[in-house]
Amino acid sequence: MRDLLKKGDFRVNGSIWVEGKGTRFFGPGPVELLQLIQETGSINQAARKMGMSYKKAWEIVSRLNEIMDSPMVITATGGEKGGGSTISEEAKQMIAWYQSLRDKFRRFMEQETEKLQ
Amino acid sequence: MRDLLKKGDFRVNGSIWVEGKGTRFFGPGPVELLQLIQETGSINQAARKMGMSYKKAWEIVSRLNEIMDSPMVITATGGEKGGGSTISEEAKQMIAWYQSLRDKFRRFMEQETEKLQ
Repeated sequence: MRDLLKKGDFRVNGSIWVEGKGTRFFGPGPVELLQLIQETGSINQAARKMGMSYKKAWEIVSRLNEIMDSPMVITATGGEKGGGSTISEEAKQMIAWYQSLRDKFRRFMEQETEKLQ
Repeated sequence: MRDLLKKGDFRVNGSIWVEGKGTRFFGPGPVELLQLIQETGSINQAARKMGMSYKKAWEIVSRLNEIMDSPMVITATGGEKGGGSTISEEAKQMIAWYQSLRDKFRRFMEQETEKLQ
């Protein structure tokens, strides 16, 4: 295989996600969205940082909450600052699990890339 | 992790490809295109089967030929039937290599899916 490639930088790359009920529901996008919700305390601000509409972000959060056994995003209503959103313990566990999957996948891709060089 | 998911069919899925000179150039799309060129003897027919314009197919073929050490698609000109295209031995080797990479990746995803259930 490596004989077939011209000298240069080649690498194996890819994307990995979880599907449930026939749809892709947990991958790099939802993970980034959850992390930004945690960081900003707001679905709206998280969506804006990702260049995504609030509607789209809300749909992702809503699908996550529906597919999982417990809510991923908890939105407080009322209060002086008009609520705000936070992510659940379960969401943090999902993120940690995804990151370890992504790390294993990264090692897999690095090994395959080494074989090309 | 599996405790977090509602009962149901969950699976890890993903996509894998090769990047060279900063661009994705070899993955499921180019592989399918090459296989269809081999099957039909025609870039045009292969493109049509993939619902792709001839221009787009030609761009993929052209990038493959440029990045690889030897042409992936060989187009004969002239003759009674006005030429026709075929794929090179190197293209067949690239396809076989990609399929074995995809198989390894599939086993990786299956193992991770089993851990979810």
